[in-house]
Amino acid sequence: MAAAAPPPPPTPAPEPSMNLLEPTRLDLPIFSRVRLATAEDVPHIHKMIHQMAVFEKLTHLFSATESSLTTTLFNSPPFTSFTVFLLEVSPNPFTTATAAAFPPIERVIHLDLPLVDPERETFFSDKANDITVAGFVLFFPNYSTFLAKPGFYVEDLFVRDCYRRKGFGKMLLSAVAKQAVKMGYGRVEWVVLDWNVNAINFYEEMGAKIHDEWRICRLTGRTIL
Amino acid sequence: MAAAAPPPPPTPAPEPSMNLLEPTRLDLPIFSRVRLATAEDVPHIHKMIHQMAVFEKLTHLFSATESSLTTTLFNSPPFTSFTVFLLEVSPNPFTTATAAAFPPIERVIHLDLPLVDPERETFFSDKANDITVAGFVLFFPNYSTFLAKPGFYVEDLFVRDCYRRKGFGKMLLSAVAKQAVKMGYGRVEWVVLDWNVNAINFYEEMGAKIHDEWRICRLTGRTIL
Repeated sequence: MAAAAPPPPPTPAPEPSMNLLEPTRLDLPIFSRVRLATAEDVPHIHKMIHQMAVFEKLTHLFSATESSLTTTLFNSPPFTSFTVFLLEVSPNPFTTATAAAFPPIERVIHLDLPLVDPERETFFSDKANDITVAGFVLFFPNYSTFLAKPGFYVEDLFVRDCYRRKGFGKMLLSAVAKQAVKMGYGRVEWVVLDWNVNAINFYEEMGAKIHDEWRICRLTGRTIL
Repeated sequence: MAAAAPPPPPTPAPEPSMNLLEPTRLDLPIFSRVRLATAEDVPHIHKMIHQMAVFEKLTHLFSATESSLTTTLFNSPPFTSFTVFLLEVSPNPFTTATAAAFPPIERVIHLDLPLVDPERETFFSDKANDITVAGFVLFFPNYSTFLAKPGFYVEDLFVRDCYRRKGFGKMLLSAVAKQAVKMGYGRVEWVVLDWNVNAINFYEEMGAKIHDEWRICRLTGRTIL
């Protein structure tokens, strides 16, 4: 049951199946939800951004602090500017309420192997209810002049290591897409590294089009003027 | 003087110079300024977006109307969301005031050939003062989680045909960069088509870095869910 817990709780060993074509499997549900993040979530968001920098070997570019995140995020109503959706998981169904501006999207996934989260304690968002932060997506409105419509741009999509390859990335990205549709927006856009074939395949399977012909230009620091 | 006027006003023919190394040149000043656009500028902005679609051979993607632009732009204080800077030109110095939120950036350029604007009448923003709209830039805040800082993303940069190759594109982009610095923002970003070598050279000369390794992904229309 405690899919996100280290060490996994004692689970009764399944009876060995006599049917070799269809062996008995464990059924370990993980209750997951996507909810709107608030300023209280900054410590967890900060840790995940750092993990993302480590993963991308870009820690030399990482200068965010909890304080600078708090100053720059959550200053506007959700969806009008920089917005964060948090992915939470729990071995138990969710009972606690969250921000009214966005009814959380819930899903139960079923694992056949116990999931060990070595950083469970660090990422508890609600210890009493055994709720752990497992990922986030940060997005904000962009604009298409041809459509005269806003869209959403996804700056970061991150799922913590032990929760990957379970559909959570898609759940986060879909949550943004659903919100875009709800608001009558025309597009959801993001960027991917050209060598990241796995990610490109994943996005294409979701129905995204990769626009090969565009290049990002950036003025930064001393070159900005 | 009327650099933006068709037909050019009678200009006294310069005396032929006897100094062949340094021939006498005309000096035709164009007074130009970058100012914050308002809802009243929508008809001109709409026409320029259409011209951009024609230039890019993308009119099949163009569905913006004056009404849809009015509904989606100018709903927030400048710089907090979608923001438009307008480029205006005049044969005379500017005397009229504009929005207090952004003191206009002015510049005088000097031409040695008269400039004929075949659409001058269509693009008058202030006929009494002979002020014509010559271009625009649309931008909005984006966010870097590594820096925990907003930046600006430039969606469109457009200078009307007869005003190109005179430094106005740079003037518009610099205005955005200056505003970014003023607000303590970390970056200005935009995209360019990979085959548009002239544009890429222009941006690199301005100090921009082209990030070759990123690709744009887009979910749109029916694929968005």
